[in-house]
Amino acid sequence: MTIMERESHLTAYLRDRKALIDEALDRLLPGAENEPQVIFKAIRYSLFAGGKRIRPILCVAAAEAVGGAVDLVIPVACALECIHTYSLIHDDLPAMDNDDFRRGRPTSHKVFGENMAILAGDALLTEAFSILSDSDRQPGVDPSRLLLVIRDVARAAGIWGMIGGQVMDVQSEGKAVGMDVLYDMHARKTGAMIRVSVTAGALLAGAGDRQMAALADYGTRVGLAFQIADDILNVSGNSRLMGKNTGSDVYRGKVTFPAHMGIEGSRKKLGELVDQAIDDLAAFDDKADPLRLLAKFIMEREL
Amino acid sequence: MTIMERESHLTAYLRDRKALIDEALDRLLPGAENEPQVIFKAIRYSLFAGGKRIRPILCVAAAEAVGGAVDLVIPVACALECIHTYSLIHDDLPAMDNDDFRRGRPTSHKVFGENMAILAGDALLTEAFSILSDSDRQPGVDPSRLLLVIRDVARAAGIWGMIGGQVMDVQSEGKAVGMDVLYDMHARKTGAMIRVSVTAGALLAGAGDRQMAALADYGTRVGLAFQIADDILNVSGNSRLMGKNTGSDVYRGKVTFPAHMGIEGSRKKLGELVDQAIDDLAAFDDKADPLRLLAKFIMEREL
Repeated sequence: MTIMERESHLTAYLRDRKALIDEALDRLLPGAENEPQVIFKAIRYSLFAGGKRIRPILCVAAAEAVGGAVDLVIPVACALECIHTYSLIHDDLPAMDNDDFRRGRPTSHKVFGENMAILAGDALLTEAFSILSDSDRQPGVDPSRLLLVIRDVARAAGIWGMIGGQVMDVQSEGKAVGMDVLYDMHARKTGAMIRVSVTAGALLAGAGDRQMAALADYGTRVGLAFQIADDILNVSGNSRLMGKNTGSDVYRGKVTFPAHMGIEGSRKKLGELVDQAIDDLAAFDDKADPLRLLAKFIMEREL
Repeated sequence: MTIMERESHLTAYLRDRKALIDEALDRLLPGAENEPQVIFKAIRYSLFAGGKRIRPILCVAAAEAVGGAVDLVIPVACALECIHTYSLIHDDLPAMDNDDFRRGRPTSHKVFGENMAILAGDALLTEAFSILSDSDRQPGVDPSRLLLVIRDVARAAGIWGMIGGQVMDVQSEGKAVGMDVLYDMHARKTGAMIRVSVTAGALLAGAGDRQMAALADYGTRVGLAFQIADDILNVSGNSRLMGKNTGSDVYRGKVTFPAHMGIEGSRKKLGELVDQAIDDLAAFDDKADPLRLLAKFIMEREL
């Protein structure tokens, strides 16, 4: 296949997997025919706001890379998206980033009020674990492996991962922080959930120890690449792609990779990370091609 | 044993089990030697604020009632307390109940700021599932039973349980609501977590179907009794016992049982529920005595 053929193949792959995930999310998260209506509405408002489903697609692609079935990991993939969505709702709150818009639409607290936005976030985090632990929905899954996945996801989302990183982010606003702190902050804030998306899919699909180690490395690098690409786009990009005002991180005094190493330095680092991530997959056959192309897509921020 | 002997026996039982739970929480929730310090501090500030550990003690007592070992359910018991504590932190937020004091101390957002209080609540909810799913800490536990427990806890804490009830509570402020809505609201807001505390302990300890059904009934009635006792104390009680200003629910226009059936009517209903809860345990031997006396303690709000 030529590169263009492979990319068109990936576009079809992404469209198909995204459709599977959207359909499963629609099935797993109940609608506003339930009471109290407002919480069901608020959950779905944010969950179906045009997210690209990067984390669930990475989860599915990792399962496929080790020869697993897509169906097997769909609930876990959906739970990852619920956790991601909860984190966006709470990050946007007035007491946090105080953002009025996300993906071109008013944020949850602007539509439903601050109390309902807090509760919608809490609900999505809780429902994620409800979906994860419902082994009836996951026939053929080994209960011990599923427990490991739940533990890994909880750790990635918690104080050692995403929440710890968010606290560091809040604390670093307007302060000069070193490169080591910047790396650690992003490894926790965005990296941990992206990495666990990859490893959870592979683990549930029956990956062996060596495959798991390679995929963990891949996930770590893709997670960092994703953040650097986000920072670059925030400084130089256009607001259509971001769905919010560009330059807002700088305005807020947030520390970024371009601030530390310049735009060109950041682009170089990004390219290296993507090359290394693809190298991590050297021992995998062509079933890992979606993971390889996903790394490139993330670099170009087409995802 | 005389009633007084039994009650003194229960006092010793409660003290001992509470000490076990406090010690386990101290071990399971890391301290401020970790970074970023503030989140670890905020978690422990609320977790060790003088809570009576009612939910974890019910969990342990239910396990013992069916002949299970205490050690086996300590992690689950601790996770229930983490979820309870997160719900208090978020309920106290300015956008919710806007409470400055809880158990006689400034609330989390007054000490750590609103952003950290939101994150501390998120963290406690997440760590609860991290503790629940860590089967290494729970040797001898059947993975399939543990998955059922995680699912039950998540459902009790989520949109069908506690969060749904909290949304109903927010929506009902200052409005006239009927008895059926009042029951439904409390069954979800406080009842679901109290009930699952009982059933999770019993399930993990290997309870059979008939024992589970009886204990679920017991848990439902104790949960409702707890809320009615809380309402009565809020209207008539003293602020020392409550750790907050009494009458605050009325001031806020919250709907209560005394408002619907009067203080005497509420006391009568409370007594009936406790009698029925004790009847639910008729088929159990004296290993269920702590559960029997816990029902009475809850009525007298000594817990």
